[in-house]
Amino acid sequence: MNIKVIAFDADDTLWDNENYFQEIEKKFCELMEEYLPQHSTARELLRIEIKNLPLYGYGIKAFMLSMIESAMTISNNTINISAIEKIIGYGQELLQKPIQKLEGVDEVLQNLKGRYRLVVATKGDLLDQERKLKKSGLEHYFHHTEIMSEKGEDDFRKLIKHLDILPENFLMIGNSLKSDVLPVLNIGGHAFHIPYHITWGHEKIEHEVKHDNFKQFTKITEILAHL
Amino acid sequence: MNIKVIAFDADDTLWDNENYFQEIEKKFCELMEEYLPQHSTARELLRIEIKNLPLYGYGIKAFMLSMIESAMTISNNTINISAIEKIIGYGQELLQKPIQKLEGVDEVLQNLKGRYRLVVATKGDLLDQERKLKKSGLEHYFHHTEIMSEKGEDDFRKLIKHLDILPENFLMIGNSLKSDVLPVLNIGGHAFHIPYHITWGHEKIEHEVKHDNFKQFTKITEILAHL
Repeated sequence: MNIKVIAFDADDTLWDNENYFQEIEKKFCELMEEYLPQHSTARELLRIEIKNLPLYGYGIKAFMLSMIESAMTISNNTINISAIEKIIGYGQELLQKPIQKLEGVDEVLQNLKGRYRLVVATKGDLLDQERKLKKSGLEHYFHHTEIMSEKGEDDFRKLIKHLDILPENFLMIGNSLKSDVLPVLNIGGHAFHIPYHITWGHEKIEHEVKHDNFKQFTKITEILAHL
Repeated sequence: MNIKVIAFDADDTLWDNENYFQEIEKKFCELMEEYLPQHSTARELLRIEIKNLPLYGYGIKAFMLSMIESAMTISNNTINISAIEKIIGYGQELLQKPIQKLEGVDEVLQNLKGRYRLVVATKGDLLDQERKLKKSGLEHYFHHTEIMSEKGEDDFRKLIKHLDILPENFLMIGNSLKSDVLPVLNIGGHAFHIPYHITWGHEKIEHEVKHDNFKQFTKITEILAHL
């Protein structure tokens, strides 16, 4: 391996995130319970989120707008306006969550800094991700942050070109096989997978990855033995 | 001048934008007319947009969420849910507007390409701005795009550092004195101002700029005589 740049995914790789989303989703499902059982609301919300992805992209504002749209669809436009107020409150709560860094993250970044160029490569709302990075106190470890509208092969090709390196000099570390691992391996880069204990429905894939440039770990500190 | 990188603002510098926002704002004010005169609705919407800026940032999704919140505030939570549906429709319409390039933009970029490193430096929703750049057919002129959560002095300092140049090698071209001109001049860069015929309330400032590194033009093609 001749790695020059290591890109870290942010949500659920550096800090907790999906658990906060699921907490809010649960509140939303409870709010809609007079219309639909909770698991059906969850399914309808995911359907509307995926439908809106090409238009809205990722992040909390998109999630808020999709919850509002779901509430209208599920209630057949009969829902009380106070429910919309609650949904906006849920989203604003999500935007102001504290940052819980995952165990070992500081140790790993401290060890790697100076030996590699470290960047953050993440999806989501620009301002929200910048705020989380600042709040985390991890900003100083990173050369810069790349907020990506999507994590497909072309997006990583563009990123690697922008970083002025070759794919074999690039290592992506993240919790999503679909977004952090497969596209990077497919264009000749390296990928380390550190699963988080929960995964958003849209990121779930059934896939056994076997590849020379791929490694899987259970804790982020384990990567140090390979770098 | 020893300019190496020229950064172009996007909305209302490369293509029309504010007119589309104002069109939608007008529809929103009409929708709220049973509660409030149109000009009062416009004022209340601006107040809520500015209140939400630190939390939501710029862009169409933030605008949609602020319209929804304004509708609830203005109607004292009595508005019909169908109005919320209309507001979401307005926002989705805005996200899918065609791109009208401003006159002379192609000629200018064609002339400058190869002689300077050209980048786009803009606020707004990441995915939306990428989509507009793609739709405009202007993407190939630019080295890359910087979507900025804010355009203050620190943000430009960070950008210039990331571009690996000095402030005196940086020229910003845009329609906003507040966002494209003053912060850049304050940190030692160069700025060209090309006003657009309308300006969003939050970007309006009363300010006469006199500075060695500053020039003002009425048409974008006029900048070529100075580069």
